[in-house]
Formats: sequence, structure tokens, C-alpha cells
Amino acid sequence: LYILHFMNLDSSSTVPDLLSIFHEQEMTETVHETNGHGYLGTFVGKNGWLAILRVHSHGLVTVDLQCYEEDDFAQVDNLLNALESKLKVILNGNITRIKRLPALVRGAEVDRYWPTTDNRLVEYDMDQLVYEEDSAFQNIKILHSQQYGNALILDNDLNLAESDLAYTLAIMGSGRENYTGKEVLILGGGDGGILSEMVKQKPKMVTIVHIDQKVIDACKKYMRGTCGNILDNLKGDCYQILVEDCVPVLKKYVQEGKTFDYVINDLTAIPISMEPEEDSTWEFLRLILDLSIKVLHPSGKYLTQGNAENMTESLGLYEEQLGRLSCPVGFSKEVVCVPSYLEQWVFYSVWKK
Amino acid sequence: LYILHFMNLDSSSTVPDLLSIFHEQEMTETVHETNGHGYLGTFVGKNGWLAILRVHSHGLVTVDLQCYEEDDFAQVDNLLNALESKLKVILNGNITRIKRLPALVRGAEVDRYWPTTDNRLVEYDMDQLVYEEDSAFQNIKILHSQQYGNALILDNDLNLAESDLAYTLAIMGSGRENYTGKEVLILGGGDGGILSEMVKQKPKMVTIVHIDQKVIDACKKYMRGTCGNILDNLKGDCYQILVEDCVPVLKKYVQEGKTFDYVINDLTAIPISMEPEEDSTWEFLRLILDLSIKVLHPSGKYLTQGNAENMTESLGLYEEQLGRLSCPVGFSKEVVCVPSYLEQWVFYSVWKK
Repeated sequence: LYILHFMNLDSSSTVPDLLSIFHEQEMTETVHETNGHGYLGTFVGKNGWLAILRVHSHGLVTVDLQCYEEDDFAQVDNLLNALESKLKVILNGNITRIKRLPALVRGAEVDRYWPTTDNRLVEYDMDQLVYEEDSAFQNIKILHSQQYGNALILDNDLNLAESDLAYTLAIMGSGRENYTGKEVLILGGGDGGILSEMVKQKPKMVTIVHIDQKVIDACKKYMRGTCGNILDNLKGDCYQILVEDCVPVLKKYVQEGKTFDYVINDLTAIPISMEPEEDSTWEFLRLILDLSIKVLHPSGKYLTQGNAENMTESLGLYEEQLGRLSCPVGFSKEVVCVPSYLEQWVFYSVWKK
Repeated sequence: LYILHFMNLDSSSTVPDLLSIFHEQEMTETVHETNGHGYLGTFVGKNGWLAILRVHSHGLVTVDLQCYEEDDFAQVDNLLNALESKLKVILNGNITRIKRLPALVRGAEVDRYWPTTDNRLVEYDMDQLVYEEDSAFQNIKILHSQQYGNALILDNDLNLAESDLAYTLAIMGSGRENYTGKEVLILGGGDGGILSEMVKQKPKMVTIVHIDQKVIDACKKYMRGTCGNILDNLKGDCYQILVEDCVPVLKKYVQEGKTFDYVINDLTAIPISMEPEEDSTWEFLRLILDLSIKVLHPSGKYLTQGNAENMTESLGLYEEQLGRLSCPVGFSKEVVCVPSYLEQWVFYSVWKK
């Protein structure tokens, strides 16, 4: 638990009055030598509580309080309220800002902190670990969220939640594309979201190449809000799911001269492959891109997710890669809000010039 | 800065090895008496850094590190990496989970922490305080976000960002309503978002009743991604903006027998009013609802935002209110993802039975 206080007073007058509150709680005080970095006191209670009071030279007062999940939160609130009230009295209305942040929970069974791509701290409402397994390729977790449904987390990266139809529609071109009678190749897509939406449009044939059977099995069971019943069979009238590494499959298609009307790259942001030629993420990305463009019909489209809108450098690098392909391409991008991502996400459409 | 460690070892063997890392940094150690609540040591550096090491009895190790924004982050990372590596060696692969959270920044000029309605800690990418003023009714802030554009914050509650067309479309009925030639009353809506979208459909007359001129002025200047140029004039061919408390206006309409095809309640979640009869939030809500339904044409619709999807109790109470109106009503609700909200939001459509 944390409170922030912003104000314009020196520590000498502030500290003694605040101390009384900790003393009332029978907390044991230690004053630390800070070499001129303001007042720093720690207070330990018999119940294991730890409070840290700092009064910084430029007027910032911070209070951290550590307690246990089974503790009485009313008692915690009382202590924080008492500190806040006392500070208001001491500072006599000279407080610029008071901020009390929600408690950070550590060591909980279900981890609720899944920082954004641009490394902001965000707390989710995950309340249950539905599934966890290590496959040959990655750690697979499915967590339940009250508002997003089940969410697929691969190697601690939130991939997709059942609420995220917006992702699926965006990577399919946001309604601008027509898949009826079309030949489509999907790389990744093991959650079945794209496939489930696409078969509604009666495509000629959709081929999914996904490397990890365990992801498919987990999604089939726990992500039905995304895949419906489409993953119940690996083969249907107009689709087939190949559980294979996509690189050799793409190379085979190139050799055969096979082309697709659409190639949708739905691989995870950090690609997974055991092949030696992909010694860096970017090289792997470029390889996939190049092979995908090679199997793309001249009038076809390559659709893919980019990254978080805030990752401008990453996106710039990606667009640079697009300029380095064996065949010149044009592209457009779109920013979409995917509910469970808690950050705006960029999607690309790429075509042969 | 925080790291979480989860493991299966007792503190006696863990602590001494970890201590050496703090000692190498020339941090001064204090071991605190915890009354059986595990090991607790604090370490203070000459640079004002504070590290807190706790080894809890059930196998959780937590490290908190406090430092200054102007410090060398590579040095911070080095310390945390050293701790992590050492723990991995000590515990010899018996670590269940390691989690290092992004740094919590306190006392920054631009506050980036705007917890969700269900009190989860979320960090935004706000980078600039664009505007701040206290009106007679509320504190008004406009903060800039890289991905959401400018965001309007009233009394520390994030109202709407320029990215949030989804909110505007949802409160207008998500495309199910046709406003052409219609008579519309909007309560609140001072950001101009609804009005700006609605005039495109050529309504007969839209009347906005918004209490706070300063909100309108701030949005006119800084929220143009939401309002376009519609707030440049308080009156147009098919709209008028009344800068007034909506309660007396509604009462006047009731007395006159005036009705509207649509009433859109876009008031902030916690209503603002100086009238004595609204001594509680819920009573105010019910008053507005009742008056709104009274000025609603028998075949009209009352549209409003509800609350966060996770606030099930709040939403239940609201639906209870709907059952207590002077006139029986039916309602439907919809969950919408508003980009800047970082939580799913519920919208209601209400009609007379």
C-alpha cells in the first residue's frame, strides 16, 4: 500500500507529529542515516507490518505500508487515514497533491500484473489459473478474468482473451476483405479465433500452420469464446490445421509454386523456432515475411499484427524490413483497441506493388 | 522497483548470500525484529537508495528498491540482476516464479496512475499536463497521452480521451438509433463528443444542458479530437448548448409538457449538483432518471452510461432504480471497450413499456 504526499514544508516540523501515529500502533521505529537524502524512518509492528516514511528534501513525503492479505483491511485503512488527516492538519492546507494507490499484491496464487509492451504497470482482474503447462516450445497459461473471460498467456505474454474479437477482426482486415471462395494461409492462429470467423464467409480453403499442439488443445478446451467448436476437428470442409513449424511448410509451398489470396501472420510477437537460420528475432521475422510474400498471389494481401502503438521504434524497424523484401510492397496500418491488451495495437496490411 | 520471488527454502540459508550483494554496494544494513514474521532487513545506500529484503515463512522473498529518477538505471538493473542471479544459484532451480515489476514513480509532475473503478492499479502513458483549473463545480484536468490523445479528468476521474469515439458511439446506441429529424436532449456531454457525431445525422434539434462552462471551454480548446469545431458556437442550426444545472431545466420541460425522442444522460458517474433535494448520489440519479423519463416521448429512448462491467453491485443497484420509476420501463445493456478506460464499460438503453 502506498500514499504519496506532495507539499512545501521541511521535514523537521512534519516528522515528529507523524511519528506519534506509528507509536500509537506500537510499531518499533528505526531512523536511518541517509547522507543528506531527507528523513527516512522504518516502523515494524508486532504483526509483521512494515511502514516506511520518507520526507524528501523537495517536499515529497512517501509512506509505504506492507501488511498481509489476511490482515484486517479496515485497520490498514484507519492507519492510512490517520496519517493523511494528520498531514493535512500539520501542513494546514498546503498539500499540493495526495495520492493513495491501490495495494500491490505479491506472492498471490494468481498473478494479476501483466505489464504492457511499453512496460507500464497494469493490474488485471485475473482470479483463477485455469490451465498451465510447459510445452516443447513455451509456457502456456490460461487465466480467467471477470471481464475478459479466459486469457491465453504464452511465455508470460498475454496473447488473446475471449473478449478480444476486435483482435481477430483487425488481423482479418477490419471488414475490408472478403474471404468467400478465397485460398488463405494462417501462420500461428492456434487459438482458432481467425479460423472461426473466416469459415462464416465460406472460403475455398484455409490452411493453418501452428507449431504447438498443446496450445491448440488448451484453446479448444478453455478458449471457446474465441474458437467456438472449430478446433474440435483439425480438418473441415474448407479448412485444415497443420501442426508443424511454418518455415519448412512455407518453403515447400514456394518450391511448389503454390500461392494464396491471403497470408495472415498471427505468430506471437516473439517468434518461436528451433531452426538455426533464425538466430535473431528480426531475421526470423524477415524470413517469414519474405516467404509469405513469395507465396502471396500478385493481387493478394499479407495481414499481420504489428505491436503496441507506443512501440514506435519497433514499428519503425518493422516498416524498414518491409522495404527490404525481395519484392517491393506497399502497406497500410491501423490502430485498434483490443479489450484485454490495455494498450492500443497496430495492425498491418501489405500488398505487392 | 520491485521483484517477487517464490520458492521453497528457509530464510537461514538464503539471507547471508544475498546480503553480500548489498554489502558490495556499501549499503548499511539494519535487521529488524519481526516477532516471527520472517527475516526483514533494510539497506540504505549513501546515494539515498533504500532496499528492503523480506523472506517470509511460506517461501516468498520480496525485494523493494527505492531510488531517484535521476539515478543511473543501468546501475539499478545491475543490482536487481545480481540479486536475481544469486537467488537462482542459491535456490538451485527451485524457484517457482520470479517477477520484476515496472518501477512505481512517485511525486512526478504528471501523475500516470489512474486506478480503475474496481480499484486496480493501472499506469497510463500520460506525459503532459495540458490544462488544470478548479471550476465552481470540480477540478478539471486535461492530460496528454501518447496513445489516447488528450484526456479529460474531472475530480480525478478519467472522463474521456480523444481516442474514445467508442464511448460516444455506445452512448448513442451503437448505430441502432437514427437521429435524423429527431428532438434530442443531452444531459452533461460538455466534451461535445455526442453532439459532434449527432449533427452528422441532421437531427431536428439537439439541446445540451451542461453545468460547467469551464469544462466546455477546456474541451473546445484541448479535446478537438472529440468535439471537432462543434463547441466553437454554443448555438447552431440544429443544436443549442445551455450552460445550466439540468435539474431545473428538466423540471421546466416537465411543466411545459415538452418531450424528446431521445434523452441521453452523459453526466459524470458522480453527479454534481448544489440542490438540497439531492442529498445522496443515488437519489440524484433517481431524480434525473425520473425527470428524464417524464420528458421522454412514449416511443422515445433514454440512453446512458452505466459503470464498469466489474462493478456488478453498482449495476444491480442501478437496475433496481429502473424498476422504481413512476413509469414502468424496459431496458437493455451492452458492454463496450472504451480505449482509455482500461476496463469494460456498460451502457444502457431504456424505454417506456
